[in-house]
Amino acid sequence: MSKYYGGIEAGGTKFVCMIAGESGEVIEETRFPTGHPDETIQRAVAFFTAFETRGELAAVGIASFGPVDLNPASPSYGYITSTPKPDWGQVDLRGRIQRALDLPVAFDTDVNAAAFGEHTWTAENKELDPFVYVTIGTGIGVGVLANGAPVHGMVHTEGGHVYVPHDRERDPFPGVCPFHGDCFEGLASGPSMENRWGKRAETLPAGHPAWDLEADYIALALVNLTYSLSPQRIVLGGGVPEHAGLHEAVRAKVQRHNHAYIRSAMLADSIDEYIVAPSLGNRSGGLGAIAMAIRCAEKGEL
Amino acid sequence: MSKYYGGIEAGGTKFVCMIAGESGEVIEETRFPTGHPDETIQRAVAFFTAFETRGELAAVGIASFGPVDLNPASPSYGYITSTPKPDWGQVDLRGRIQRALDLPVAFDTDVNAAAFGEHTWTAENKELDPFVYVTIGTGIGVGVLANGAPVHGMVHTEGGHVYVPHDRERDPFPGVCPFHGDCFEGLASGPSMENRWGKRAETLPAGHPAWDLEADYIALALVNLTYSLSPQRIVLGGGVPEHAGLHEAVRAKVQRHNHAYIRSAMLADSIDEYIVAPSLGNRSGGLGAIAMAIRCAEKGEL
Repeated sequence: MSKYYGGIEAGGTKFVCMIAGESGEVIEETRFPTGHPDETIQRAVAFFTAFETRGELAAVGIASFGPVDLNPASPSYGYITSTPKPDWGQVDLRGRIQRALDLPVAFDTDVNAAAFGEHTWTAENKELDPFVYVTIGTGIGVGVLANGAPVHGMVHTEGGHVYVPHDRERDPFPGVCPFHGDCFEGLASGPSMENRWGKRAETLPAGHPAWDLEADYIALALVNLTYSLSPQRIVLGGGVPEHAGLHEAVRAKVQRHNHAYIRSAMLADSIDEYIVAPSLGNRSGGLGAIAMAIRCAEKGEL
Repeated sequence: MSKYYGGIEAGGTKFVCMIAGESGEVIEETRFPTGHPDETIQRAVAFFTAFETRGELAAVGIASFGPVDLNPASPSYGYITSTPKPDWGQVDLRGRIQRALDLPVAFDTDVNAAAFGEHTWTAENKELDPFVYVTIGTGIGVGVLANGAPVHGMVHTEGGHVYVPHDRERDPFPGVCPFHGDCFEGLASGPSMENRWGKRAETLPAGHPAWDLEADYIALALVNLTYSLSPQRIVLGGGVPEHAGLHEAVRAKVQRHNHAYIRSAMLADSIDEYIVAPSLGNRSGGLGAIAMAIRCAEKGEL
């Protein structure tokens, strides 16, 4: 009887592999740096093989860094596509794991998986729709669930790169995004903070003007997500929002930038339940991959 | 045998009521100015009553101006809520029509209905998901379908009011949105053009700098929608985009502002199929209401 599920959070710097039961209880976990694809995929496969050969693994989910191809009808479905990361361009991540383990393998972006994980494994999130997960660290990513499922579409959401108002008088910094310059990621990612202020984000003290500016950019992006998607909750994760007081500052500025336009008790009275920290900490992606594996085994959905 | 469906496009300036068969063929249609709610709702009900009393009407759909309450569990479900339009605040639009006709009544925003109409009645749109409808006229509205259904969530999407970059050196105009000032609607609606240039949008000639600026704001908003939602098609409707050449200018600027970040043939090679004019002309909302009525009669979905 196959009663366990595998989850892989395939990140650009590390892979996290875990095995869990149907309630999401993790029974084994490993993490290792992302090296050459051949070696990295081999390590992931080896981790799962012991369970797989005993017939105890029902399916695997992969939460991958991108860009990826999510279209099951495409010849490059399950590939990491045009990444600048050396050796990882056009790598058939899903296919190679699927063939090695001979199991059903679900595949999505790391941020959609994180949204799905937070939604699946946290009781108070289960009924919320749309549901958005935003992570702000080295990069910025946005995962979206709407009408009960992750949103894929043309490619996948790239909400980290939306344009936000950039007041160059207040903030003459041009932004660090190699594509857009001053998009959201260009202005508010960890590297943008380090570049602008000459110090790593986590070393910038409370009260430094960096944090007020950061809260404004995040709030403008969250207002835009609120208007575009009407989510019932936004999970704000990643390293940068771990700074003490940043969540509170963002909430206040979301209310301010909304100017009481959307009149919802969620924004006016319960904003601390509207914009929340991840309840799974840094495991949202991996446990999301587990949830994807379960859905894949039960419903055949990839 | 009930074989006809009613559709109401309830706008702030006019109501359009239509009756159509299951293939969307309109057999009767009327339009009248939006007056006091009592009189206006009565006129709409009277239009449908002849069919209803012969038992030929299966259901009615309402595509309403907003803000509205779309939550079936809410006591004010189906109401127009906090509109500044005199007499229309807290009006139970759906309930009054439902009780007068004693039929199933589906209810959604005008823009979600328009998206649903374009999606349902245009063969080449049927499989596209997410699917976005943007209208730019007196105001700006954005309707969204994702994973097969309109997106509701906290309230409903308000994508017309997203913040877009505002280069005050190039465009010192402060914007006309009474809430946000220089949000998308504040900078790019018909009234914003009239206010900025001192002439109604439709009288601004080709080559006037108004159009290049307008195309930039629209393109920035569409890039943001593309990144946030990954739609497979965006329908760009309303009065302003009827200006000759504006669609083409917007498409070129969407490509430019994307900076080849999202690498999709849809953006690179088929952008004239990605950003399109409404195929139902000014009937997207009304025919969307018909489609909602059919879905409501068939599946019981509101």
